[in-house]
Amino acid sequence: MSKRERVRIKDIADKLGISSATVSRALNPKTESLIGKDQIKRVREMAQKLGYIPNIGAASLRTQVTNTIGVVIPDILNPIFPPMIKGIQSYLSSKGYVTIFVASNNNQDEALEEVRRLIMRNVDGLIIASAFLEDESVNECISQNVPLVLVNRSIRKGELVHQVLSDEQHGIDLAVNHLLSLGHKHLVYLSGPNTILQSLRRREAFEGFCLQRNIAFDIVDYDQDDTYAFSVEAGRDAAEKYLRSGCAATGWIAANDLMALGAIEACRKVNLRIPEDISICGFNNMPLTDIVNPSITTISVPFQEIGVQAAKMLLQEINAPWPSKQRLLMSPHLVVRQSTAAANGSKR
Amino acid sequence: MSKRERVRIKDIADKLGISSATVSRALNPKTESLIGKDQIKRVREMAQKLGYIPNIGAASLRTQVTNTIGVVIPDILNPIFPPMIKGIQSYLSSKGYVTIFVASNNNQDEALEEVRRLIMRNVDGLIIASAFLEDESVNECISQNVPLVLVNRSIRKGELVHQVLSDEQHGIDLAVNHLLSLGHKHLVYLSGPNTILQSLRRREAFEGFCLQRNIAFDIVDYDQDDTYAFSVEAGRDAAEKYLRSGCAATGWIAANDLMALGAIEACRKVNLRIPEDISICGFNNMPLTDIVNPSITTISVPFQEIGVQAAKMLLQEINAPWPSKQRLLMSPHLVVRQSTAAANGSKR
Repeated sequence: MSKRERVRIKDIADKLGISSATVSRALNPKTESLIGKDQIKRVREMAQKLGYIPNIGAASLRTQVTNTIGVVIPDILNPIFPPMIKGIQSYLSSKGYVTIFVASNNNQDEALEEVRRLIMRNVDGLIIASAFLEDESVNECISQNVPLVLVNRSIRKGELVHQVLSDEQHGIDLAVNHLLSLGHKHLVYLSGPNTILQSLRRREAFEGFCLQRNIAFDIVDYDQDDTYAFSVEAGRDAAEKYLRSGCAATGWIAANDLMALGAIEACRKVNLRIPEDISICGFNNMPLTDIVNPSITTISVPFQEIGVQAAKMLLQEINAPWPSKQRLLMSPHLVVRQSTAAANGSKR
Repeated sequence: MSKRERVRIKDIADKLGISSATVSRALNPKTESLIGKDQIKRVREMAQKLGYIPNIGAASLRTQVTNTIGVVIPDILNPIFPPMIKGIQSYLSSKGYVTIFVASNNNQDEALEEVRRLIMRNVDGLIIASAFLEDESVNECISQNVPLVLVNRSIRKGELVHQVLSDEQHGIDLAVNHLLSLGHKHLVYLSGPNTILQSLRRREAFEGFCLQRNIAFDIVDYDQDDTYAFSVEAGRDAAEKYLRSGCAATGWIAANDLMALGAIEACRKVNLRIPEDISICGFNNMPLTDIVNPSITTISVPFQEIGVQAAKMLLQEINAPWPSKQRLLMSPHLVVRQSTAAANGSKR
């Protein structure tokens, strides 16, 4: 294998006619004082000439620190995750850490297997973006005492973990108020799965606001496999189900932007116009929602910043653990675009 | 630090009142024959009960195999990379490897630094998706004899590396023929940077086809910093430059979809209609190009499959190196959507 051909300490020693131990000491700032200055200089020059790169495996075994962070995401093709990953990775990289990303595909067994593999590799900590309300992979980290931050989604027993989340309740409040201000009297929420906190919180917030303010509302509950969670297909199916049931609401909120895109497709198929007949509000402000047709009114969640904060919280926990678990809520904001308009508008 | 609390071999040994060496031997398939069967059973049961997960660091130091692959991408926010990453990662994960992703931000210094850090971590091999025609990070891998596959982009001296690329020449051929078949007599190419092979190949193919078939053409050369390569901004700037220069062509090809989106924006600002006045063809068929407004005619590149093939080629190279370097070209295909139409069409 080509690996054997990599430049090793022994190659430097052979070239200089000295022992490997001397080379090793000369290259380690903690032991170089044992070696003469001339010798150190000769060793360093030869190391550079041969292109020697140290292998940190041995050091990491000694110190039990690998400067490696594992990150579990559901599916990189869901456009909310690339910005979150960018935030996590750019922060960790600036602090000298590398990031191992693994995918759960919204499947608990896959998540658990990947988390175990990451722990076997002795990662210094984990960021999990794929948590379900009851989640074996999170439990595994807790029982193994691995420093952990949940991001984007959390577990039911949130007091057991550090978490960086979007303020879902505030986001739904913004969406509901936007549709009410446009004169919509009857609202519907196309829900994501209730096994995911983020999704459940949005659903509960919607129901709560409508009940509290006496607004006519419907909820289309999610009845698919978790692997379809938050997908275009899930939105299309939910919208078709609602349209078949009579469809009283003119103001729609989808659990996320991908579901909003699916709902728009479903409306078009039955010749309902967006926003003339139906206003649809998404959630997340994922990339390109500004240039789809129609562009999507949505709740903008600061995913990149959420990623940065999760990485920051994790490194803090690794270096000086908090006595109790932290919970950081990041505020979303409303972005108004073409997919929502006044109810019974002039265009109708 | 919480790490100290993880279950270790010593914990199992203490619980059973035996030595750590015995536990270690019992848990290693290669040494378990030294221990009695009853003892092995007791150790394994206790290990499971305590939730012991082995640390593979020691084994990897011994064998020099880490089952870790490093992958360098330019920017995860460019939508062509998530599918490529998904292809790479799903294949590697199915073969028991973990993947460390790092970002170069199209910056050679950052790429070189990240590659060095990956080599220090003793990765078994590298996939680089961020190569420039002259590329220090690639040279570093070659001089360190690290198994390597370039994906998506390559270096000028392609014979020195394994590579999995899209067939750029075929892609441009499809785009040019599409515009000619719609009756466009004058074409323009909005180029990406000539420091990137993929970009240079597309530009050269365009020029070659036009010269060969006597087609009137223009090329808007890329004159920005490499960090803007292939961005919406680059497309907008190129289009504005061309519009200022007189803009004779009605058939436009952008070096990629993001640049096509930027060009559409620039045309709109001066009230040129797409596709009634100008037909614009993109490249890559990145996610969501089917639902932007107008949807984009583009050359579909099979990024996820390219990722899978690159991962496959790398593992083959690690396990049984080829005597010479391999080059796999994957064929793109044309996807016709709303951004192109007949020249001087009835809508004008």
